[in-house]
Amino acid sequence: MLESIEFFQLKLVKVSCRHRNRGDVLKSGVVLSGCGAEDGTAIDEAILTFLALERAGAEIICVSLDKDQYEVFNHHTRKSAELDQKRNQLIESARILNRPAKNIETITEDEFDLLVIPGGNGVLKNLSTFVDEEDQFRVNNGLQKLLAGCFIKKKPMGAIGEGVFLIERSLKGIAENLVITASGNTSERVNVVERLAIDHVPCEKGEVCIDRSSRVVTASLLEHGESLLEKNSTIEKLVEKLLEML
Amino acid sequence: MLESIEFFQLKLVKVSCRHRNRGDVLKSGVVLSGCGAEDGTAIDEAILTFLALERAGAEIICVSLDKDQYEVFNHHTRKSAELDQKRNQLIESARILNRPAKNIETITEDEFDLLVIPGGNGVLKNLSTFVDEEDQFRVNNGLQKLLAGCFIKKKPMGAIGEGVFLIERSLKGIAENLVITASGNTSERVNVVERLAIDHVPCEKGEVCIDRSSRVVTASLLEHGESLLEKNSTIEKLVEKLLEML
Repeated sequence: MLESIEFFQLKLVKVSCRHRNRGDVLKSGVVLSGCGAEDGTAIDEAILTFLALERAGAEIICVSLDKDQYEVFNHHTRKSAELDQKRNQLIESARILNRPAKNIETITEDEFDLLVIPGGNGVLKNLSTFVDEEDQFRVNNGLQKLLAGCFIKKKPMGAIGEGVFLIERSLKGIAENLVITASGNTSERVNVVERLAIDHVPCEKGEVCIDRSSRVVTASLLEHGESLLEKNSTIEKLVEKLLEML
Repeated sequence: MLESIEFFQLKLVKVSCRHRNRGDVLKSGVVLSGCGAEDGTAIDEAILTFLALERAGAEIICVSLDKDQYEVFNHHTRKSAELDQKRNQLIESARILNRPAKNIETITEDEFDLLVIPGGNGVLKNLSTFVDEEDQFRVNNGLQKLLAGCFIKKKPMGAIGEGVFLIERSLKGIAENLVITASGNTSERVNVVERLAIDHVPCEKGEVCIDRSSRVVTASLLEHGESLLEKNSTIEKLVEKLLEML
């Protein structure tokens, strides 16, 4: 027999339809680095980000690099670089939402009102030199320029997990007193944060770190085993806080 | 200036935690055919199905075939078979949820309590001979056996879009008076349904077709341009109806 334990939650759902000007729908850039949690952007984080942005009434513009992923990971056997293939980030990013993506190198921050970077191990591997240079890692030039441009034009930016490192590094010397969270990251990555004396605050699961002066909202690493419901709730909160900054 | 039109919706959210027996969590199979709307399972439909199943308290068991996808589609240029690659369905299905998938050929219906088949063009291409044989198409043997087994053991089954055709064909001669929906499908596919005189009822966007006697719930094709919010709402309804049949 089926035993079913059920309870009801009364939830106030804010349904928004946001416009910059009459008829001009809010646009959000979403930075993707290919398709897959280990070698690109985490697929679940990307889809849940799209869902939260759509719920907020925003149009989604996916942006990525016209460049091969650092590797192709076998998510079934959990082995790295087993597959003798090359996969292009722009093409694989388009796969996630089944829509063409825009090239980071040619798009400017003028094309959207806010920007989100979902996490995934490929985010650092593909969009920066983190794997090879660690402490000294550099963010892809085009992306660094785009993120700096967003900051200068006061466009809110959000990042999850690995994406947080890209924002932090890109705003170095530009944003004063930037506060982010690096919670949930591997000790290796947290070590980098510590060595570079990056201001970071602890963040509980489900919480987000809000830096209102820099207009940056960051979320802890959403762990592999974490439930989609928890991830969804964190991402909804992140998007909600970004919208408050518009 | 930002104009923001907002309204609040009061929503009653049912939070369930379902068990077959004390301590025995409800398990749902999810049939995947690789990763990508055009050459595998639609990624958004898969993730939203996982989300709805998790919300219902179910554990998810992804199942797929250890066989190459019919093709690899370039979702950026929207061109078919442009990429000179082979991709294995089991490996690419594991990519979607970042977890190993189980082989359809070796799993049995005893390992779960219900089963869902999300849509995507690859679903028909990879799990059946539809592309080459149309009217005469056959479902992969292992999958046909699994779906027939679910029916015989009275385990509810749900399918979206292209997945509906797999259930219908697999239950031919087994389920009497099966009623499904084929709404939203291409005229080519609806023609097949008509030629084979399959009982099908029209289904509005957001509705699902419920056959209580066969324990089968089907949803229209979720179109490419359809919003994730609409897809999410349809999928939540489909999962809710499946749970009612347990």
